[in-house]
Amino acid sequence: MNTRLRPMLGIDFPLLAFSHCRDVVAAVSRAGGFGVFGAAGYTPEELEAELRWIDAHVEGKPYGVDLLIPENLTIRTGAGASSADLLAQIPPQHRDFVRGLLQHHGVDPDRPLGDRRRDDPDRPPPYQRETGERLMDVAFRHPIRLIANALGVPPASMLERAKAGGIPCAALVGAREHALRQVQAGVDIIVAQGGEAGGHCGEVSTMVLVPEVVRVAGDTPVLAAGGIMTGRQMAGCMAMGAAGVWTGSVWLATAEAETSPVFREKMVAARSRDTVRSRGRTGKPARQLKSAWTEAWEGPDSPGTLPMPLQGLISEPAMARVNRAAEGGNEAARALVSYFVGQGVGLVESVQSCRGVVDSFMQEFAEALEDMQALAAG
Amino acid sequence: MNTRLRPMLGIDFPLLAFSHCRDVVAAVSRAGGFGVFGAAGYTPEELEAELRWIDAHVEGKPYGVDLLIPENLTIRTGAGASSADLLAQIPPQHRDFVRGLLQHHGVDPDRPLGDRRRDDPDRPPPYQRETGERLMDVAFRHPIRLIANALGVPPASMLERAKAGGIPCAALVGAREHALRQVQAGVDIIVAQGGEAGGHCGEVSTMVLVPEVVRVAGDTPVLAAGGIMTGRQMAGCMAMGAAGVWTGSVWLATAEAETSPVFREKMVAARSRDTVRSRGRTGKPARQLKSAWTEAWEGPDSPGTLPMPLQGLISEPAMARVNRAAEGGNEAARALVSYFVGQGVGLVESVQSCRGVVDSFMQEFAEALEDMQALAAG
Repeated sequence: MNTRLRPMLGIDFPLLAFSHCRDVVAAVSRAGGFGVFGAAGYTPEELEAELRWIDAHVEGKPYGVDLLIPENLTIRTGAGASSADLLAQIPPQHRDFVRGLLQHHGVDPDRPLGDRRRDDPDRPPPYQRETGERLMDVAFRHPIRLIANALGVPPASMLERAKAGGIPCAALVGAREHALRQVQAGVDIIVAQGGEAGGHCGEVSTMVLVPEVVRVAGDTPVLAAGGIMTGRQMAGCMAMGAAGVWTGSVWLATAEAETSPVFREKMVAARSRDTVRSRGRTGKPARQLKSAWTEAWEGPDSPGTLPMPLQGLISEPAMARVNRAAEGGNEAARALVSYFVGQGVGLVESVQSCRGVVDSFMQEFAEALEDMQALAAG
Repeated sequence: MNTRLRPMLGIDFPLLAFSHCRDVVAAVSRAGGFGVFGAAGYTPEELEAELRWIDAHVEGKPYGVDLLIPENLTIRTGAGASSADLLAQIPPQHRDFVRGLLQHHGVDPDRPLGDRRRDDPDRPPPYQRETGERLMDVAFRHPIRLIANALGVPPASMLERAKAGGIPCAALVGAREHALRQVQAGVDIIVAQGGEAGGHCGEVSTMVLVPEVVRVAGDTPVLAAGGIMTGRQMAGCMAMGAAGVWTGSVWLATAEAETSPVFREKMVAARSRDTVRSRGRTGKPARQLKSAWTEAWEGPDSPGTLPMPLQGLISEPAMARVNRAAEGGNEAARALVSYFVGQGVGLVESVQSCRGVVDSFMQEFAEALEDMQALAAG
């Protein structure tokens, strides 16, 4: 297809797939989509290893990297800080609340995880500018075709380095006003992500947000995001003026995904009403599967969530232990299992391969175009 | 256009326009859309007069009637009951709360309204089955081409009378599970209304709900609703498998609409984030413009909302007095002004005529089809 994104991203079919899993990124790009690796939570050394793996498996197809460098972060650390410095800021009642919640569900809160990404006090704290710069150093050393920032206007250094390298810079927005600021800042692609999306999101729905953002974006291409799980929805968004789509949740139910089998089972069973926009995972509103975890943070005994990134420092190790326990057959732990996922989860009927999902998108997209041509002819 | 709705509704362009205003209904149908008159709140005698007016002004074009006969209603009255019987059930603290709120904004809570629809204790109570049957008696005496029910599965009598008269029966749903029940009940058209819609709505967004409902609707045509203000969105919804669209908010900003000039000004100024799903107007969750009214019901002094239809019996006369005061130049009253409207309000840039809106829909729809054909060719 001759879309505005073809020359920018080197793809015919403008289906972008956000994933924290290298396997998904490489598989989608190989299948004719465009994988975007979500680097948040990785150290620069880990990101280097992941991108090296992708380079070796993507068969020369284009892919991108998404960083999460929040424009607004309540708690910033100085250079050289570690997660331990932030962990020291977590109040005792929050620690006790999480311990109690895990124990109530039969999960040992002290069991070693052996997972450096989730439980290492020496790691650099997440989402900080300094770490972001180092992640950028890594990303720009690889043959990426897109760099994106997930929360707010990208730092000037990202825009400058992208421009110097001839690499498009994308940014996610949840409201028309944010899109205006992104255009002024000079981003090349705007991702208009509706409130039904998984992960951090606003309140305006994709159906309303996409045309709103298209109106103010001018010549800047807009990717539609939020709830998009099918090729027909992709066609619908492009009829509304989007240049393509940005997807996330649909890849969590693939065989290649990093998600646990228990979570995938929950995805297949879930209805679209089974998600909630909650601060319980990261400290900022993020849509995720409703579970005993999200309910507990809303409940009468909740100490209230902590600001980003503190909330993640207690939620991620806890959820890793929960997953481990649930996978081990602990039925009580299962009730806590959750992950970022959008309302589109109601459209997931089975676990497929990434190639299978890309193929379905292409087929459904073609069918939608045929239907529209028939309408035009009739 | 040769859509599935052409033989059912007698229209080429499947743009349905819900309105409580006869002028809008007639103007939309005359312009090539399909007006649907929202009869909730009218007495049978008033509905007779409204439909007679529409018959005289619609130039033979097709139109429909929408009733609001809730499947689930907490408070039902016996035959022959009046609004006064229900008014007696309103606790004193709710009366005092509304009086205080109005007085705080410089609105006299005792000023006679001279508006029988909003302030007549002898009126039949709204939303009751008995009134619904009598409204149906009226509707089926007119040359309507559609009858719809807005909350839940239509009563069996509506389905039977529609079938006997060869008139399609539509029903609104906010979740996939509701659509399944409607199909089983035998409705002819399902309106899948996303949570961004104005008025009573669920939580699932239009982008997710439409494909969900299309999947379970089988041969039953699905109209997309929620956030749809433009012909490009209409094309997008039809690419997703909808047979057409059901719109509401966009007509509130027309010259023909029943809305007050103050509310129309607020609509033009509002952003998509300025609506809220609140029980403050009817007792059931309904999306409306955020105002001092919706905030007060969420505030610390709120006595809590009452169940439908009690909440409406205190809110409607109050809001009528608020509108009157605001139109009279009372700036303090202006802050209270609100009405049912969806997130699409952010796409409203000016007040137009109904014909102008229909024309825009047709033009944008054609442009979207052209774009999609270019994609298919490229």
